[in-house]
Formats: sequence, structure tokens, C-alpha cells
Amino acid sequence: MEHQVGTGAGVLTRRRFFEQLAAAGGMSLAVAGLEALGFGFGSAQAAPPALSGATKGKKVVILGAGLAGMTAAYELDKAGYQVQVIEARSFAGGRCQTARKGFKYTDLAGYSQTCDFDEGHYINHGPWRIPYHHRSTLYYTKLFGVPLESFVNDNDAAYVYFEKGEGPLKGKPVRKGEVAADARGYAAELLAKCASRGNLDAPLSAEDRAKFIEYVIHEGRLNPKDLSYTGAEGRGFAVHPGAGIDPGPGKPSAPYAFKDVLDSRAWQVLSSVTEFEQQRTMLQPVGGMDQIAKGFERQVGRLIRYSTNVEKISQGPDGVSVAVRDAGGQPSVITADYCICTIPLSVLRGIDMDATTTFKTAMADVAYAPVNKIGLQMKRRFWEEDHAIYGGHVYTDMPGINSISLPSYGWQGQKGVILGYYAFGSEAARISAMPPKERAAFALAAGQKVFPQYQESFENAFSFCWHLAEYNLGGWAEWSPEARATAYPALVNGEGRVYLAGEHMSYLGGWQAGAIESAWQQVARLHARVQQQV
Amino acid sequence: MEHQVGTGAGVLTRRRFFEQLAAAGGMSLAVAGLEALGFGFGSAQAAPPALSGATKGKKVVILGAGLAGMTAAYELDKAGYQVQVIEARSFAGGRCQTARKGFKYTDLAGYSQTCDFDEGHYINHGPWRIPYHHRSTLYYTKLFGVPLESFVNDNDAAYVYFEKGEGPLKGKPVRKGEVAADARGYAAELLAKCASRGNLDAPLSAEDRAKFIEYVIHEGRLNPKDLSYTGAEGRGFAVHPGAGIDPGPGKPSAPYAFKDVLDSRAWQVLSSVTEFEQQRTMLQPVGGMDQIAKGFERQVGRLIRYSTNVEKISQGPDGVSVAVRDAGGQPSVITADYCICTIPLSVLRGIDMDATTTFKTAMADVAYAPVNKIGLQMKRRFWEEDHAIYGGHVYTDMPGINSISLPSYGWQGQKGVILGYYAFGSEAARISAMPPKERAAFALAAGQKVFPQYQESFENAFSFCWHLAEYNLGGWAEWSPEARATAYPALVNGEGRVYLAGEHMSYLGGWQAGAIESAWQQVARLHARVQQQV
Repeated sequence: MEHQVGTGAGVLTRRRFFEQLAAAGGMSLAVAGLEALGFGFGSAQAAPPALSGATKGKKVVILGAGLAGMTAAYELDKAGYQVQVIEARSFAGGRCQTARKGFKYTDLAGYSQTCDFDEGHYINHGPWRIPYHHRSTLYYTKLFGVPLESFVNDNDAAYVYFEKGEGPLKGKPVRKGEVAADARGYAAELLAKCASRGNLDAPLSAEDRAKFIEYVIHEGRLNPKDLSYTGAEGRGFAVHPGAGIDPGPGKPSAPYAFKDVLDSRAWQVLSSVTEFEQQRTMLQPVGGMDQIAKGFERQVGRLIRYSTNVEKISQGPDGVSVAVRDAGGQPSVITADYCICTIPLSVLRGIDMDATTTFKTAMADVAYAPVNKIGLQMKRRFWEEDHAIYGGHVYTDMPGINSISLPSYGWQGQKGVILGYYAFGSEAARISAMPPKERAAFALAAGQKVFPQYQESFENAFSFCWHLAEYNLGGWAEWSPEARATAYPALVNGEGRVYLAGEHMSYLGGWQAGAIESAWQQVARLHARVQQQV
Repeated sequence: MEHQVGTGAGVLTRRRFFEQLAAAGGMSLAVAGLEALGFGFGSAQAAPPALSGATKGKKVVILGAGLAGMTAAYELDKAGYQVQVIEARSFAGGRCQTARKGFKYTDLAGYSQTCDFDEGHYINHGPWRIPYHHRSTLYYTKLFGVPLESFVNDNDAAYVYFEKGEGPLKGKPVRKGEVAADARGYAAELLAKCASRGNLDAPLSAEDRAKFIEYVIHEGRLNPKDLSYTGAEGRGFAVHPGAGIDPGPGKPSAPYAFKDVLDSRAWQVLSSVTEFEQQRTMLQPVGGMDQIAKGFERQVGRLIRYSTNVEKISQGPDGVSVAVRDAGGQPSVITADYCICTIPLSVLRGIDMDATTTFKTAMADVAYAPVNKIGLQMKRRFWEEDHAIYGGHVYTDMPGINSISLPSYGWQGQKGVILGYYAFGSEAARISAMPPKERAAFALAAGQKVFPQYQESFENAFSFCWHLAEYNLGGWAEWSPEARATAYPALVNGEGRVYLAGEHMSYLGGWQAGAIESAWQQVARLHARVQQQV
């Protein structure tokens, strides 16, 4: 009997999206190991490389003022290099963006939006979370004094809404804690009974077996007398405990039937231990993710030439020259000894560049993810007031929605901005083809199934399609195992005097830490090369 | 074979302390159900009672300006009653206190302390957490505009330190996520294998059995081919993924041996679903819990007579009279139609009071918890910088320590205040007998076993013994099942014109929600009585 890891009907997370890609590529998840998917989940590089030694008057041109580019600029400038940064947009940050009142965006399909959220409200339509183990990102938030607050990334009280399962829980919002208590409670009951009958397939001594049963009873909140699961206080109460005699102790809630839980498939949101990249404690900058970009910009803004497009990257034995054009259409050429290019491969492969066929083929081998996110301003925080849900995600199997995320700031305020969907792949492509108003209508219709107050509370929306953003053409690089094996090393190596940096040059795909650590690695390589020169 | 829920060697939490008391009283936890312990875990009373109708010029004297007293004052004043509040301390809040620079406290053993934390740092030595389902507390934080932030109450990266177990993990700090992944992974392996051999004690169809096995594989991150657990990415990496080729994908970490995990007993910190009262999302007021007290005080401070001791509570057919003495020693008598007395029973039973023997016996039947908490100011946030632990609790089986808690504010700042222990019962009594400097030394020696940087980072400490606090004489009421059955209803009922309110008059013992909801209930009873009068 061969078991497959269930991904089909589950919530499509960014992680699972990668997994499915791998599966489609004929790669067995179990055989390959997750790391072979080219999507890493942690970071422990905690500080930049020490660039000691002479910089020999060398000049470095950096293409792109996203986090990779600004990291490179900051570290090279500090080491004594001459640094110039070229940025196509009128602002720095790259994908580290935040939409708030007045933020304008016109996508490649021609849809223009201006964010109209109330003052103090925002949506991080790019990166929105900082795992505690992304020490490189946290190195700069600390260095630049960017205030952080915790991001609620897991909430037992948040609903799970699965409509593709079977049985009475199909299409019914249930709280994650209820599903967790029941699925695990019933499983513990079966395991404890199996163990107490001596049916375990393990060489346990009698003493160890007793200890194991004690553990299982403890975990599953089983009745120690008959090893039964009859509910757990962690799933919530039918009547909450309170004051006096009534409600007094309250009344426990009854568990769902075992079969109903199994049939719902809502257990797909459970994991015995949270995936490493999603673990607590998750952090976010106070006021929006772009506070990190602004932190960098305070340091290296003087080195950035904004609103300037790269048209051609040339190199010879003595240096690189980059042909650019400014917002007024004025062309110019920037020369330098080296180039650190952080332009996404999706964009870079459309730019004229002196590079070998191998290098160009490698660039072409990498797909970029269609991604769409929408922020919905609600005039009332009904999820807090009526449902007692403070932050976290409502996981759902509705295509293109995946999760509805509740803000981790502005607790108990009047209004709030919800992430209405987080769409990837073909669903993101489909949704992005709609005019913005239709995207909002799509998000609202879905959210209405979970929260009765959804549509009536809606005020305005802002959505962003990363694959239709001119200077991104995708949310992040998607490495197939094959491309990771061949194209990736070639691109990491760089081409002559041109070094590539960005999340695409890391196993922390789509994370800011990937961009930063990639930049650290490439400036170290560049600096070592300079050191070797006589 | 009869199984006992393991509490002996585990972490002593406030909850488990209650459970042990019940066990000592001969009460079987499994038989009684948790609610019979008189310690409820949720609250759903979301708004105060509507006190409509005439107040008929009645005057109510409220004894105690803690949250129960101020809640009663606020609601009765709003309804039109004449209200006067008597408070023994020079400030309002009762147990809702926060120690920060300059906070003075002299305990009944004669030890005086003045808190010397740096500006901006504090310890909540009383209540420190607001569960998302304590809607009554959240009602007032919203109404009074008390800003909240999330409190990190669960952190997979935080250490578990058990020194009473056996095996190689004994006395070794291990991250909670490691223990969770391994204990649950091995358990899932055994369960999946048992199920695949058809050995489950459950009437599952072949289809349901397959679905169940799929669930178990998913939860335990098992190899679907052979159902083995060989580690999970959620337990962390040996080499973290990063940029380029090296570290590139990183290296997975190896699981601990099954027997070692079992022997460590560190699995006692696990629960298939977090206990309801400890679930995410947990909240705290920005700047200290006493911001709630200050929110109330802004509303009802004008009704409070501070620094005034209650000496005698008398009542007759026409009203109540309360003999008080002010800080200058000046006695006076306050008369009113009714009294709401929120003085802890531990203190009230020492005050001369017109009450029946039944009522006095009932008061005497309730024990109050010895509790001691200590805040340790550290000059460097080594737990964040060196250990990548952002908030949460280090659970330990060290007697009197129980948990070391890391602050959920001031992320990445220079300094921080750690909760060095949370001691209950006899351990709290033992620790409180030491001079404050010795308490700090005790806490530091224990923390040093977990964090090598502990002692060298220490700057100063502030500890608080609730059972030695003059106007509290205990952390909270401890109801035995017997007292809950007999004494509790008598006390909830009140005595003539005197109504009792406070956490002790609820099943939310020790929680602010218990105080508030009890006050709501008693003002509603008082008002109903006034309505019935002609």
C-alpha cells in the first residue's frame, strides 16, 4: 500500500504550491526531500561578511534598489567602494512594498488603482512576515531601528472553511482548535488502545510502553480509565465559564464525530509541528513592511538614481558599462569595475546583456510565480467583535482564495484591512485578468461564506498582481529541481564582472532573507576577487 | 491498567497547581471533569447588563477599587446610582498592577523594594495576559481606548528544560519544536503502522481507514512509502538554508531517539490542542497591565476615596454603614443603601462584619494561593540575539521556577525584563521567605542552566509576593470542590445588603474577566432588587 501526501484538496499555501509544481515535474516529494524543491525554510546567516582589506578605488554599479541591491550598496559603501544604484521605480524597496492611502499602481494589463484605505491602515501586498529565524532580515531591522511587532501567524480560534470535503462539516466554518482537538483526540484514542493491547510495532519495554501510553493520554486529553476521547476543553465550550452559579463552570462542548472530521478533510490544515518557516514567533514592522525599505533608504538613498531604466549591460576586460534611460527619456551610460545585478530574472532576460549562451539559457530556465493579493478595508472589525478572532488566517479550499488573513495591528480599532485572498499560479492569473472591482467581488463572495458580515462591512479594495508588475513579472523565482541542478549554479557563479543577487539566488525563495543573504554572499565574492588583484 | 494523568514531574503551571490541589483532595480529574475544579477557562459574557429603570436615589458603597469594584462603580454610576468607592491603597487597580521605575512595595515580612528598571521596562507581577475569549475584559479595553498588542504565549523555538527526567536529554535545553516534532512523529509512525496492519480498534471502512492513514502521515510528516518518521523540517535544521550553493538548501536535523524523548518527560509540555485559556491569540496592554486600571480610573477616579481602610461593615433593615479610617488615622462612617464588597475573602474575613455564622464559615472555607513572581532586568536581550527566541515561555521542571518568560514588547531593543519564575503554593511560600536579593539569586542560578548569558547580563530585580501583600493575602481564591459546592453559593448570594464581587465569585479564578463578570452579575442583582421595591 503506497500513501501519497495529500495536497489535492487542501489549502493551497505558497509552500504547497511549490510542492505541487515539484509533483507535476514528476518528482516524488518523499524521495526528493523538501530541500530538493529549491525552497528553503530557514536562515541562520546572522551577520554580513566582514569586508576587510583595500577596495582599491573600485566602483560597483548595482542594478535594483530592492533589499538585495540596497544590502549590497550598504555593505560595499561601508567597506569603501564607490557605489551607484540604479532603480527603475521612483521609490526604493523592490518587492518590499506597502499599499496605503495614495499608493498608485498600474499593471501591465492597464488597470490602474490608487489605494484609498483610511489613514493608519495598509496591506503588505509583497512580503508580510518575518520568521524569527530570518536573522539576516532581523540584523537590519535592529541596525536601522525599524520597530517590530508580532504577527499572529497561527490562531486556534480562526475558522477552517473546507467546501470540497464530504459530510456535515463540508462548507461549514469550524474553528481550527475544534478540528485539532478532535482529529488528534480520536487518533490518540486509537493509538493508546493499540498500545495497551500490546499491538505496537516497536521494541518497547513494559516500562517504556507505560510511559508512552501516559504521553498519548496526555496529548489527546483522553480519559485515563478507558482511553476514550470525549472532547477536550481546548476545543472550546458550549457555555463559557463565568461568574456566580450561572454560567458558573459553563458547559463543555461536544466533539464532532470521528468520521465527520475525517470526511471534512479540514485536518489538512494540521501539522504535528508547525512548518519551520511558519513557526512562531513571526514578526512584522510596525506600520508596514516598507519600513524596512525606508530603513535601508535612509542609509543608501544618496547612492540611488531613481526612475532610471536599464537598457543594456555590457562588459569587457576592464569593466562594465550599463546603458540607462531616465524618466525624461534621456540616455546615459554608467561605467564601473563590477556590477551587482538584482533585477529579477523574469525582467533581466528581456534586457540586452553581454552574456554567454549558457548563462542566457540558464536565465530562461527559471519560471516566475503568478501571485495576486488583495486588501479589503472593512468598516468594522467584525472578526474581532462578533467572532473573537484576533489575527491569524482562515484557511479554506476555495480556489484562488486559499487563506483570508486578519490584520495583526490596530486591535480593537474601528476599521481594519483584511487580506481577502492570496492567489498563486493559474488562479492568480485568472483573477488578475479581471478588472480590480471584479477581483474584489470575487473575494467578497468567498469571504461571505465564512463571515456573514463580510459584504456589508466592505468599503474599498486594493489588489496587486506581481506577474503583471512591470519591474517584477512574478512574485518570486520558481526553481524546478532540474533548473536548480543546472541553471542555478551557473547563475550563482555570475558572468564575468556581473554578479547576480536576489531571492532568486537563494534557497529562501520569496523571502527577504533570501535577497539579503544572497547579497551578502555576492559582495563577499566580489570583495575576495578585488583582494586577489595585484 | 489504570492510567494517571501525569502531573508529578511536569511543569507546574497555575492550572496544574489547581489540578494537583484537586487530586490531593481525593478528586479524580477524569471523573470530575475540569469544571468541577472550580477553575474555568473561558468567558463569553461580552457586555455589561443593561441597568434600565429608576435607581430611586439609592446609594451604593463599593469596597475596593480593583477591577471588580471599578466595574461596579462605572456601571452603577452610569445607571444613575450614587456611588462611593473605598480603596485602601493610594492607587486603584487592585491586583491589576505593573512594576516599573519607582514602584514601591513593602511586604508583610517587612521587605521593602523599589523597582529600578530602566524607563520603558516593566513587569506585570499580577495579571499579565488577556485571552482572546475574555470578552468582558476586552469590552473595557475597547471602551476605554487601552491599546493592546499581542502577547506571545507559545513559542516553538523556546527551550524546554527538564532535569528530573532520565536519559541524554535530562538537564539539556531543547527547543519545544524539536520535542513536538519527534514525540508526535514517532507516535504517528506507530499509529500509521498499526492502522495499515488493520489493528485499529475502530469500525472504519476501508475507505475511511485509508483517509485516516493519510491524515496520520500528514500530521506526523511520515515517509508515505514505509510510514517511518525520520525527522521533520519543523524541528529545525542542522544547517539552515540560505543563499547560493553553500549553505544552499542547508541540512536537515536528525531527530532525537524515541526512547530519549520518552525518558526526558519533556513531552509533558505538549498538548494536542492548546488549553483553552492559554490559546492564541493572547493580548496585553501596551505599556503594562495597569493601563487597564488607569483606563477605569479615568472614568471613576472621582468616586474613589483612596488610602482608606475598612474597619467594620454593619447593616440593618435600612442600609449599610462602613466604618473607615483614612491615612491620617481619622475615622469616619459611610452610609449607603447597599454595599458591593470586592475585598478578597482572605482579607475580608479579618474585618469586623455583620454576617451570619454560615456566611463567616463560608468565607473561612476558601484558601488563597501563595504566589511569587520576579522580574529580572537584563542589560542585553541575549534570548533574542544569541538564541533567536522572541517571547514565549521556557518551561522547566525546576521547583519554584516553573517557567521563565520572555517579554512580548521591546523587540530587538537593548535591554529587557524577564519573568524569572512564577512560583505557586509551598514553593512560593519558601521563596517569599528569602530576602529579595536571595530570591533574585535563586532565579539567576536556575536561569543560568538554560541560558549561559543569564547571570552576566543581570542588572536588577523586582519580586512580588501576593500572599504577603497587605490588601491581598494571596494571588487568588482556591476553591476546593467541597467549598465550591457549599461555601460558594452562599457567598455568591451575599449577606443582606452586602454583595460580594471579585474573581473569587467566579469560575474564572485569578483572571481579570472573573472580577469584571462577577461585578456585572452582582450589579444586575442589586439593580433587580431596587426595581422590585415600591
